[in-house]
Amino acid sequence: MKLTILGCHSATPRVNAHPTAQYLEINNRHFLIDCGEGTQRQMRKYKVGFSKIDHIFISHLHGDHFFGLIGLISTLGLLNRERDLHIYGPVGIKEITVLQLKLSKSWTKFNLIFHELSSTESELIFEDDKVLVKTIPLNHRVYTNGYLFIEKPKPRKLHIDNIKQYDEIDVCDYHNLKAGKDYTLETGEVILNSELTIDPPKVKSYAFCSDTAYKPDIVPIIKNVDILYHESTFLKDREELCDKTKHATAEQAALIAKEADVDKLIIGHYSSRYKNIEDFKTEAQTVFENVELAKAGNVYTTSTLPQSLVV
Amino acid sequence: MKLTILGCHSATPRVNAHPTAQYLEINNRHFLIDCGEGTQRQMRKYKVGFSKIDHIFISHLHGDHFFGLIGLISTLGLLNRERDLHIYGPVGIKEITVLQLKLSKSWTKFNLIFHELSSTESELIFEDDKVLVKTIPLNHRVYTNGYLFIEKPKPRKLHIDNIKQYDEIDVCDYHNLKAGKDYTLETGEVILNSELTIDPPKVKSYAFCSDTAYKPDIVPIIKNVDILYHESTFLKDREELCDKTKHATAEQAALIAKEADVDKLIIGHYSSRYKNIEDFKTEAQTVFENVELAKAGNVYTTSTLPQSLVV
Repeated sequence: MKLTILGCHSATPRVNAHPTAQYLEINNRHFLIDCGEGTQRQMRKYKVGFSKIDHIFISHLHGDHFFGLIGLISTLGLLNRERDLHIYGPVGIKEITVLQLKLSKSWTKFNLIFHELSSTESELIFEDDKVLVKTIPLNHRVYTNGYLFIEKPKPRKLHIDNIKQYDEIDVCDYHNLKAGKDYTLETGEVILNSELTIDPPKVKSYAFCSDTAYKPDIVPIIKNVDILYHESTFLKDREELCDKTKHATAEQAALIAKEADVDKLIIGHYSSRYKNIEDFKTEAQTVFENVELAKAGNVYTTSTLPQSLVV
Repeated sequence: MKLTILGCHSATPRVNAHPTAQYLEINNRHFLIDCGEGTQRQMRKYKVGFSKIDHIFISHLHGDHFFGLIGLISTLGLLNRERDLHIYGPVGIKEITVLQLKLSKSWTKFNLIFHELSSTESELIFEDDKVLVKTIPLNHRVYTNGYLFIEKPKPRKLHIDNIKQYDEIDVCDYHNLKAGKDYTLETGEVILNSELTIDPPKVKSYAFCSDTAYKPDIVPIIKNVDILYHESTFLKDREELCDKTKHATAEQAALIAKEADVDKLIIGHYSSRYKNIEDFKTEAQTVFENVELAKAGNVYTTSTLPQSLVV
């Protein structure tokens, strides 16, 4: 699992402060999460391939999270894309996209498949043999979802040395062993699966929680994820702005991380009011230790510290 | 008159190739012309003040000329703008903007005043005491206008040394003299205005012609402008692509400049197919000598060579 931050600042644009967009590679699937203005430029800058992405997840229809979507779709058209593109986001995302394509007479040759969301309960919205994606209902000024990405469990790994001690176990049996079944010898003796296989790698998971007020009822949904990205626009000194604008403080993001017992918390979406974003980390670490500050170009994996892409 | 290029490349995004946007200061008026994705970031980069702009002119509704508009409008809202903002562009620009503001529940506190265009004849669309703006109907795949910006004639300047030779000419008469009127002495003798005043500075003018096929019938509209910006997406080697996509070659842009007898031609909107954009200048100069290649950050005035902004 590999998460690339393409932008992590709040709405007011600055030269080196890009709005929210992320690229997630998980179990050989490639997802774009949110798409603020200029995302396609950031994708070029950080060498994110345009063609691999088949699924785009938009958290909400504030500009700093989706104004870059139509430009990206247009560019995919210019690049002669043919594969279907799936777009997940709040009701309205289809109307706005279709209207822009209509006015510019720039219909795409590929299919745009919209999955419009309106539920306030967590839903399974994507599933294939590798990954599943669920919504994380959030609390913002407009209808907003975070997204939870979970690898499908991988098959158990064969313990070949042990298997070879039993001549009658054949290659044709491996499928059942990988699926966790015990093996019954012709004598009737049962060999436990745990003797013949070893645990597969732990499934990885990532929870993206964009703009939201502090919402502890998401904790059961994101329990034990490897990485939680939780926006934190303000520090405690402006908690009253959080109430008004439905954002979270760094401390509140950390409380969610602690309650959900995640491995790592990444925070971003810093208000431009703050000159020193290290203060966000300091505040969050009063509650939860393993905190990283998002930065455009940073790549996070479950096993290593963030690496800056060489550009 | 001062023209700042914010972006001058065609649609396919690259890290350092921004789509069309320009900032024009003319006779103390401040206009934004086209607004491709990322324009607000380019405005920050090149120190173009957000608050001075009251009028935005969009040539057509292809994304590389207007996908940055909604983000800029949203940002002006975040910056607590109060003054009216006028937007000129093809029919549809209001619907798309209003829909986006509605879906994001981000109505601006300032008035957005749309001037939707649909005529295929040149129209006067803006006039105050300083400047007038006319459309330049173009020929592209969607309805498209260029824009012609002309300073209003300034009053004649007083020739104080000469005036002082006539005691009876009073300060109260200066208004008439500046307006070009002769002065009649009490003796009945007429002093010609040309003896009492000197010519005002020549009025400046700028013609912006965005995406268009070669369209020589615009020549009378833009005759004798100081600066003509005329996109030229291809060179002669791809003239068949010009026919298909309704763009112009560098040579065709230069032919327009020559026929209109302009002072300076600036070309831009280069296709990403070309590695060496100097070839555009070379081709254009076979027809018209005073050619400049647009480059983001370049500033053009009527009197000097382009200056790169220090950023």
